[in-house]
Amino acid sequence: MKKLLQVDFDFNGPFADEMTDALSELAASINNEPGLIWKIWTESETSQLAGGIYLFDNEANAKAYLAMHSARLTAMGLSNIRGRIFDVNMALTSINQGPIAK
Amino acid sequence: MKKLLQVDFDFNGPFADEMTDALSELAASINNEPGLIWKIWTESETSQLAGGIYLFDNEANAKAYLAMHSARLTAMGLSNIRGRIFDVNMALTSINQGPIAK
Repeated sequence: MKKLLQVDFDFNGPFADEMTDALSELAASINNEPGLIWKIWTESETSQLAGGIYLFDNEANAKAYLAMHSARLTAMGLSNIRGRIFDVNMALTSINQGPIAK
Repeated sequence: MKKLLQVDFDFNGPFADEMTDALSELAASINNEPGLIWKIWTESETSQLAGGIYLFDNEANAKAYLAMHSARLTAMGLSNIRGRIFDVNMALTSINQGPIAK
């Protein structure tokens, strides 16, 4: 069953285009992570936060990615890393046009 | 500019099909909220959490929805409500097939 992984952490930049320049190689590498279907990259200069919303093909792959990614973020000096793995309620999501194929 | 709203809160059910039955009318009403593009409904019986990932057309609509929804959840007796509004880094999201049209 597909799982949604929600991650955020304290972040003081770079944001926007500079974030893109700094992290495009990392983004490309994420396509090679087992079970990744997609990632939405989130950022807030106002709140000094960044993170991601991920869809994985199953729970084991979501858990493995979260463990690896948390360690990587910690190694980058980032803190207050919060990761949560959720089921998607597909019936309710379909009512609201959520972009997740069955 | 589109904004992503991430919400979660403590939740002890109903989950899965029973959640669908309980909340389908609420889901239908959410389609009428100003600026809503989509919502992904999240739930975790394991973690005793539920929430949603929303895409809105702009920040004012995301903020207004978060204020209204937080009050509604509180009135339903739910607690530890956490809402965060993010920009989407479109370039990085495109690299990872994130389902957000430009």
